Amino acid sequence: MKSVTCTAPVNIAVIKYWGKRDTELILPTNDSLSVTLSQDILHSKTSIAASKEFTEDRLWLNGKEEDITKNRRMHNCFRETRALRAKMEQANADLEPLSTYKLHVCSENNFPTAAGLASSASGLAALVYTLAQLFELDISTSELTRIARQGSGSACRSLFGGFVAWQMGQEADGSDSLAVQVAPESHWPELEALICVVSDAKKGTSSTKGMQSTIETSPLMAERLRCVPGRMDAMKKAIHERDFQSFAELTMRDSNQFHAVCLDTYPPISYQTDTSRAIMALIHEYNNSSPDGKLKAAYTYDAGPNAVIYANKENMREIIQLVAHYFPGTIGTYFTDPYKVIGDAPLGQDFIPKAHSTFNENVIPVFPAGSVSRLLHTKVDDGPRVLANPDDSLLNAQGLPKRLA
Amino acid sequence: MKSVTCTAPVNIAVIKYWGKRDTELILPTNDSLSVTLSQDILHSKTSIAASKEFTEDRLWLNGKEEDITKNRRMHNCFRETRALRAKMEQANADLEPLSTYKLHVCSENNFPTAAGLASSASGLAALVYTLAQLFELDISTSELTRIARQGSGSACRSLFGGFVAWQMGQEADGSDSLAVQVAPESHWPELEALICVVSDAKKGTSSTKGMQSTIETSPLMAERLRCVPGRMDAMKKAIHERDFQSFAELTMRDSNQFHAVCLDTYPPISYQTDTSRAIMALIHEYNNSSPDGKLKAAYTYDAGPNAVIYANKENMREIIQLVAHYFPGTIGTYFTDPYKVIGDAPLGQDFIPKAHSTFNENVIPVFPAGSVSRLLHTKVDDGPRVLANPDDSLLNAQGLPKRLA
Repeated sequence: MKSVTCTAPVNIAVIKYWGKRDTELILPTNDSLSVTLSQDILHSKTSIAASKEFTEDRLWLNGKEEDITKNRRMHNCFRETRALRAKMEQANADLEPLSTYKLHVCSENNFPTAAGLASSASGLAALVYTLAQLFELDISTSELTRIARQGSGSACRSLFGGFVAWQMGQEADGSDSLAVQVAPESHWPELEALICVVSDAKKGTSSTKGMQSTIETSPLMAERLRCVPGRMDAMKKAIHERDFQSFAELTMRDSNQFHAVCLDTYPPISYQTDTSRAIMALIHEYNNSSPDGKLKAAYTYDAGPNAVIYANKENMREIIQLVAHYFPGTIGTYFTDPYKVIGDAPLGQDFIPKAHSTFNENVIPVFPAGSVSRLLHTKVDDGPRVLANPDDSLLNAQGLPKRLA
Repeated sequence: MKSVTCTAPVNIAVIKYWGKRDTELILPTNDSLSVTLSQDILHSKTSIAASKEFTEDRLWLNGKEEDITKNRRMHNCFRETRALRAKMEQANADLEPLSTYKLHVCSENNFPTAAGLASSASGLAALVYTLAQLFELDISTSELTRIARQGSGSACRSLFGGFVAWQMGQEADGSDSLAVQVAPESHWPELEALICVVSDAKKGTSSTKGMQSTIETSPLMAERLRCVPGRMDAMKKAIHERDFQSFAELTMRDSNQFHAVCLDTYPPISYQTDTSRAIMALIHEYNNSSPDGKLKAAYTYDAGPNAVIYANKENMREIIQLVAHYFPGTIGTYFTDPYKVIGDAPLGQDFIPKAHSTFNENVIPVFPAGSVSRLLHTKVDDGPRVLANPDDSLLNAQGLPKRLA
């Protein structure tokens, strides 16, 4: 039995992907660009074992066995990677015929799937990356992103660390629709993120359904598609120059435009709640009262109510204080903070940064405790990791899950 | 002393006005179209007295005296109507020189101004209409709308009953930017409206500031401006044919597109709350479960959280039952119902119409009592009215307010 275990990170787009021109191949209607967040905080972990003893492909997701044949998107990833392995085996008879073996796949997220934290992107990225390691595929990461894209569109962006662009491509077969690294995580290590998990998230429209409905019914979507190329260029420039001002404004504008075309969809799609919008208002007030007039934080929202706030490390402490004052937590569940930014400072004291003398304290009310259920403090970081220690595997020596739900 | 008292109605747009191409003359960036609602429920009332004894122009708004010289928009309306009167007096020496007299103006809304119910439109319409009556101006209503427009843009649409279009016009001096009646109230008397006043309305961005910010910063606004002419044609056709299906879909789409360009503004503008969006979801579920697949209700939202639901009379009873179930009122404040649609039926019983067998009862939760603070049931109705009975005047025989706040 051959077994490999890997983790893959979550990515949060700053130029949003919304709309497919081909739903089977998952080819998007526009380029997108994301930041890869640290696997120390959020990751999907996948173990895959191949053995000639196995009688069927089996899949366990978060401790529950699922019917692999019913998951067409995962199936696409199996088919594509096996085909590449089969070619290698044809060319080299010494290779073990792994492409003919059945596989056992076990995958887990280290965060609740229901939290709406881009789990499908990290999950499919972990699957495809682990398959590539298992089969020892001799292809570049960008070539691999073509396969991940067919599992879950935004998964292609989780195969790189740092700053990643998904080029929509032009070809009908999707051969040029792949992800490339714009800059590695080492380029801008000061960039950090604060994920505000908004509780009581109403179950919204799925991204898959929602984006097709936008393409079909939103008159404003055509204009968004004309906007994106210019925004991609400007965002790449901002990243290359570590220009937080441009990065922040573009990030907020693009998040808002994405939610605007959702609202222009018929029937309309609404992912943000009053809590989401209050966080937006808070960040604008924080920026507006910045002593030198410079933006210090930028929010972005995926297809859900959770805010992700990007900021430079030097400002993150005061941003956490500010958010924690207006959205008090419930004890024991609030922080995951490997950077110890908060230290021993009691939350709620001096929540307005001293330099922000024009800050309007009444911009939003203090929300009921738990309106934001968790704050996750993280940073830009690397791409998928191989875990060599067998103790890290989710599968035991028999190729079965160590833990079931 | 000569004195006149008039009332003017509220109008609620189904194709929204948002954006000025000239902020001084109040010339819009697109045509708009509204429905005039009954003055029996909502109106602004204005009394104006002219006397050579008066020493200065004076103004009382909702019982409080205000400095008329500081209200530039009202001042525009005074200047324009006085100029027309002066011309008449020059041509006919027998006319009383009212244009040289000082005026006392007293105006009240029969609803809280803070409720966000288009009070500036009805208020300025009442002012201009009363001035025209006082001065016995010999001009058409459409010519008068040009003056009302300079007081408050959407006020021009409150000078007609029924269905009213504000033509944006092309001229730089605004001479062709005026309102015309698309159809009188008698054309579609079955059309009714339910105003859902959403409480705890956060004080949002003013319309005046908000629309200019959209013009300056929203990339999607250009596409909206390209959309509106086609929507105006389709809406006029729907009204002429009393085609509720087209009327309803266009109304909801245009409301959503207006709020979409607000969200695409930088910084973003947000007028709707979770309660607003829940009402939208409820109306879509109600329409989706309609037994013959036909739309039975349409929502629209101005620059605030309150919903206005348009429906044909035959469906209004079940719509009120439905809304009242999910948004329970607090006793004594809920209904203003001159049409007695509810009768003696207890609210909350059989809230899902029997024919809607596929209605998903869990589409939204039941909201806390008072989330919708008032339901106002009204209908399409006539334009401004002259009140001939002196008892109806807000001014006494000395030209001073009968009541002060």
